[in-house]
Parts: sequence; structure tokens; C-alpha cells
Amino acid sequence: MISGTTTLIAHLGYPTSAFKAPLVYNPWFEKRGIDAVVVPMGVRAGDYPDFFRALFSLTNVRGALVTMPHKVTTIGLVDGMSPTARVAGAANAVVRRPDGTLHADQFDGTGFVRGLLRKGFDPRGLRALVVGNGGVGSPIAASLAEAGVGGLGLYDPDTAVSAALAGRLAEHFPDIEVATGSADPDGYDLVVNASPLGMADDDPLPVDVTRLAPTTFVGEVVMRQEFTPFLRAAMNRGCRVQVGKDMLYEQIPAYLEFFGFGSATPDELRAVSLAEDDA
Amino acid sequence: MISGTTTLIAHLGYPTSAFKAPLVYNPWFEKRGIDAVVVPMGVRAGDYPDFFRALFSLTNVRGALVTMPHKVTTIGLVDGMSPTARVAGAANAVVRRPDGTLHADQFDGTGFVRGLLRKGFDPRGLRALVVGNGGVGSPIAASLAEAGVGGLGLYDPDTAVSAALAGRLAEHFPDIEVATGSADPDGYDLVVNASPLGMADDDPLPVDVTRLAPTTFVGEVVMRQEFTPFLRAAMNRGCRVQVGKDMLYEQIPAYLEFFGFGSATPDELRAVSLAEDDA
Repeated sequence: MISGTTTLIAHLGYPTSAFKAPLVYNPWFEKRGIDAVVVPMGVRAGDYPDFFRALFSLTNVRGALVTMPHKVTTIGLVDGMSPTARVAGAANAVVRRPDGTLHADQFDGTGFVRGLLRKGFDPRGLRALVVGNGGVGSPIAASLAEAGVGGLGLYDPDTAVSAALAGRLAEHFPDIEVATGSADPDGYDLVVNASPLGMADDDPLPVDVTRLAPTTFVGEVVMRQEFTPFLRAAMNRGCRVQVGKDMLYEQIPAYLEFFGFGSATPDELRAVSLAEDDA
Repeated sequence: MISGTTTLIAHLGYPTSAFKAPLVYNPWFEKRGIDAVVVPMGVRAGDYPDFFRALFSLTNVRGALVTMPHKVTTIGLVDGMSPTARVAGAANAVVRRPDGTLHADQFDGTGFVRGLLRKGFDPRGLRALVVGNGGVGSPIAASLAEAGVGGLGLYDPDTAVSAALAGRLAEHFPDIEVATGSADPDGYDLVVNASPLGMADDDPLPVDVTRLAPTTFVGEVVMRQEFTPFLRAAMNRGCRVQVGKDMLYEQIPAYLEFFGFGSATPDELRAVSLAEDDA
């Protein structure tokens, strides 16, 4: 129950109508007896920098969850950020540290990697192909780099997008071998669809699945259905897979730790979530 | 339950720890199935004007409850205000109208007058003495004027405070006879303690109760205990009385109507309130 002692986590984006975070975090806070609440705040792009600064003048705000269209703008408004946020070129979380400075991070990719690890797939030293190098693929590539991947293949229909991501990776993770320009999954230990392909019924598959080895682990970000056509094709070839929603539930514990609220397992969060029906 | 469609009412003040409004409004919203939430936001005085402007750039904020230390500042930040707020020189509520303009009002005095009316005491045409003409007494005097009182006696140990309030009353309610400088209750139909006297154990009574007629109605704003020494003395003389907390619960329906959430009775609000133990 919200009271005068409650700590606020602002959920910043626009439009707000599809926000799911309050429906997951708030029941969990209540269950754990944590006096905090996630509050959706609809901010248009033009209003964001001023609102962001004013928000952190509040005495009872600990941090913010940041979603579209503000993830890129946010990195220009904070005092510091993680390497993952730098490589992603975007942030989806901001915390106010005890000294008052604002620190940003990016947990989309963290959620993806945590899901892999939970399934017993450690990407350290392995080769990963990330298809789609924009707002979702960039943080996944950054988190894979952070997790110690040996080589990264980047593919995006917009080659400039791939090149820019490759440049940021080279700057922060110079030891990782990065290749761009091909979506051929042959020779990769991990293949990730971080493109929107699979959102529409008649989308082509993001890679040529006949070139997928059964030993390759396949990850998906599309959440339209649990098993997308791409995942089903990969499973038919014998591949292990990770569904889109795993990334979502795996990243929430990373946020909770970042904000200083302890941690939770994805299963605990799913159990209390009110967003499951339509997430 | 808060979701992406929830309308926000900001509760602005500092410090926030003693805020009671969330504990009354939010259970009532939940009981009525109203998708809205009161969110405490701690704002220091120096940060207030910038935060206030930024707040109303949010797409899902309908209004604000304003408390100390921002009630006076607020009237300089809005597009329009009620006569009550003008006379009080302070606002405790702001609503964003459909055209985007911000309108302020002051409901402390409204709550006091609604309580009188509910008890069958209509101040129209009568004479009222208001002791204490500052942040609480000013809105009570303004609301009594709005309710059609015939004459007002104003008393404050700081005579400049009484004079300023008398000036604002004369400007907006020129037909009301206003006298200042005396706390003698003789001849008044209504006597209100709007001073802090009664907060401490050894406070003197705000007026000479031996001069109170049994037909005089006596109101109190101090909420430290239900029946303050002043109220007990008045009751011993046969006076009807109104306790401090009545003003609190009577003003909430006025806020709800102002924000467009329908209305409620004080009894309904007390029944759902989680603030009753220590309000």
C-alpha cells in the first residue's frame, strides 16, 4: 500500500497503455513487503529531458525504468553508465546513487544472457550470430560481449547499423572477433533473432534454418507467441531454444538488484505477475 | 492495481513521511474500481516550480494535491484559480482541464464548511469569528465568505496577517462586514479555532470561553485529539461543536469532485481509510 514513506520507481515512456512492468513489480513488492512502487509516467519525446531532470529532484525517487521512445536519449542525461549501455547506445534503467549521481544501464541483453545461463548454455568463448542490430540486437550483442563470447556475427538489413554496433564493440571489447554482413548461421554456437521478423504472419524466417546445426542454441526476442515459426523450425532441427518472454522475466531480477531491492527468480515473478494473460 | 492506463494524482510536498492522502484515496479508488492512484512526490521548495511544470507535461497526470511547503507558491504557477484560493492566497489542489490549462483551488475551508452544513449549521447571513488567520484560518475565512456569511471577525496575534486577509476578503467579497483585532467571541454565531493553540498540553484556550454563548457553534482545526480542551470547554457551556478531523474527511469529497472522480461521503472514506489509526 502506497504511503508517505514509499520509494518510487518511475516507468518512463510513451504511450503507457501497454506498460507491463507495474503488473509484475508491484505485486512482487507487496509480496516481499518492500515499500516501493513502479509508477507509469507518460512522457512525450520533446518533454523528456526536462521531465527527467525534474524527476530526479524528487526526494523519494530511487530510479527509473526507461522504455520507448527514450532509451537512446537517456544516455545523454546521466552521469555515468555501464559498458553494456555504452555499447548498446541506449539505456533502459537509471538509478540514483547515494551520492546523488545518476547511473544508467541496459538490461534487455542481460535478461537474454541470464536466460541462456539458466538453461546451462554459457556463451563464454563461443561464437554467436545476432540478426537484427538495432534497439534489441545492440544490447544483446553488448551483453554477450560482457559475458565473454569469443566471436560475434552481426547482421542487419541496414549495413550501417551493423557497422556502428561493430565499432562500439571494437572500442569496448577489442578482443572479440566481430564479423558483419552475413546472416548465415553455419558455424555459430548461438543464433539470436533480434529482428522483428516473426511479428507478422507472413514474415520470412530470419535465417536459413537448413544451415542450422542441431548443436546450435537458438534464441528469440519476438513475444507474439511462445514458439515462433523460427523457434519451431529450429526445434525441428534438434536445436535447444530460448523463447522471447524468457528474456523479459530474466531481466527483471537484474533491475531489482540494480535498484537495490534484492533479487527474485523469474518463476517467483511469473507467479505474482498480473501481466501473464496478455504479456 | 496500477497499470499503464492508470491516471495519476501527484501528492506534492516535503517531507512526505506523514502524508495521509494515499491511505484514504487509494483504497477508495480500489473499492470503486476507479483506475487512478495518488502518488506521494517529495519536492523541496527550491525544486518546486520546475518540477511542477515538468509534472504537467506527463500524459497521465490529471492533477495534484498540494501540501506544505508549496501551497502559496502554487498560485503563481497556474492559469486560473477559484475565489477561495485567491482569498486564501494559497492552493491545495490543481487540476489539468481538458484544454490543458491548470486550475487551482483550496479545499481546507471547503471541508470545514461542508462539515458545518452536514451538522445542520448553515452559516449564511450569520456572524463568524476566525481565530488564527494564517495558512488554515485564511481558507476557512474564504470558504465562509463563499458560503454567504454575513459578518466575519478576524483575530491573529500578528495583526498584519489579519489585515492582509481582511484586504483580500474586501476585494472579493465587498458585501461582507469584516472586523479585526478582537478574539472576543461575544455576539458571534460561529467561533473557529484556526490557530495552533491546542497542539501543546499547556496551551491557553484560543478565546475566553466564559464569553461563549450556548447557542454559538464552535469549530476546531487541531487534530491532536478528537475533543481538544477548547472543544470540551465549549461543550460544557452547551455549544455544538465540530472536531478537527471532520474538516479533513469533509474536504476529500470536494477534491474528488474537483478531479472528476465522482463523490463520496466522509463515512465511506473513513470506512476504507488506512490512515485512521494515526491520522
